[in-house]
Amino acid sequence: MGIFTSDIKTFDDLFVSVLQQIYYAERQIAEQLQVMVGKATNPELRAGFEQHLRETENQYKRLEEVFRMHGTEPKEATCPAIDGILKAGNSLAGEIDDKQVLDAGLTHAAQMVEHYEIAQYGTLIAWAREMGRQDCASVLQQTLEEEKATDAKLTRLAEARLNRQAELQSA
Amino acid sequence: MGIFTSDIKTFDDLFVSVLQQIYYAERQIAEQLQVMVGKATNPELRAGFEQHLRETENQYKRLEEVFRMHGTEPKEATCPAIDGILKAGNSLAGEIDDKQVLDAGLTHAAQMVEHYEIAQYGTLIAWAREMGRQDCASVLQQTLEEEKATDAKLTRLAEARLNRQAELQSA
Repeated sequence: MGIFTSDIKTFDDLFVSVLQQIYYAERQIAEQLQVMVGKATNPELRAGFEQHLRETENQYKRLEEVFRMHGTEPKEATCPAIDGILKAGNSLAGEIDDKQVLDAGLTHAAQMVEHYEIAQYGTLIAWAREMGRQDCASVLQQTLEEEKATDAKLTRLAEARLNRQAELQSA
Repeated sequence: MGIFTSDIKTFDDLFVSVLQQIYYAERQIAEQLQVMVGKATNPELRAGFEQHLRETENQYKRLEEVFRMHGTEPKEATCPAIDGILKAGNSLAGEIDDKQVLDAGLTHAAQMVEHYEIAQYGTLIAWAREMGRQDCASVLQQTLEEEKATDAKLTRLAEARLNRQAELQSA
C-alpha cells in the first residue's frame, strides 16, 4: 500500500474501509448494468437488469446514509475485486455472438456481481452489529435482501431456459 | 481479447471457458490459503483454512475429472475476477496489525473467495445439466456442497466472535 494509506487498527477502521470499497463498487456496477441492458436479448433478463439498475442507484444513496450515521464523509476506495469481476464479465461477453449463449454469459456475469455484493454486505452487517451499530446494520440489511432477491431471480431465469431446452429435446 | 482467442459460439464453449477459469482459480486459491494459514491467530480459523486447503487440492483433481469426462484436455485460463478478489484480500490484510481485527479481515477475504466459487460452480452445474451432462454436474455438485459448508463455517466463526464481544460488553 502507498505511504499515504492509513493502517487499519480497529474494527471500525475495517468497517469504514469495506464501506468505501462497496461505495466505489456500486458506482462501477451501475455503469456496467447500463451496458448489460443494451446487450441482453431476453426481455425478462433486460427488464431484470433495468430494475436492478434502479435498485443500485438507491443502494448507492443508502451507503451515503450509512456514512452519515457513522459520522464519516462518504468516500470511495478502489476495490480490485469488483474491478476484476467486471473485467471477467466483459471479456467473456465480448467473445459471444450467439444471442442465447450471450444471455447465458450475461446472466452468469450478473450472478458473479451479486455474490460479490452478498459477501460484502453480509460482512458489513455482521461488523456493524459487532460494534453495536444496529442502525447501520438495518439500512445495509435492506440492500442485502435486494441483492439476494436479484440472485434468486437470475437463477429462476437460468432454470426457465433449462426447462425450455429440455422440452425442445423431448419434442 | 487477443487474436489467438477462439470466440465462444456454443454453450459448450462457454462451459469449457468457465471450467478453465475455475481450474486456474483453484490453484491460485490453494496458494493463497497457505499464506492465510500462516496469518490466522484464532486456532479454529487456522484449522478451517487448513481443512479448506486440503479440500481445494481435491477440488482441483475433480476439475481434471470433469475435463476428462467432457473429452477436453485440462487447461487453465486466467480469470481476472479471482485475481482481483485475492488482490483485495491481500491489500486489506496487509494493513492490519491487531490480531483480532486481522482474523476478521481474513475471514471476510475467505468469504469473498467462497462466494466467487459458489457463483462459478453453481453456473457450471446448471450449464452441464442444460447440455444433458449429468455426469459432469454430479462431480461439480460435490465441490459446490463443500464450498457452501465452508462459507457457513466462516459465518459461524464470525458470529461466535460477535457473541463473545456481546458477553464482554454486558459483563
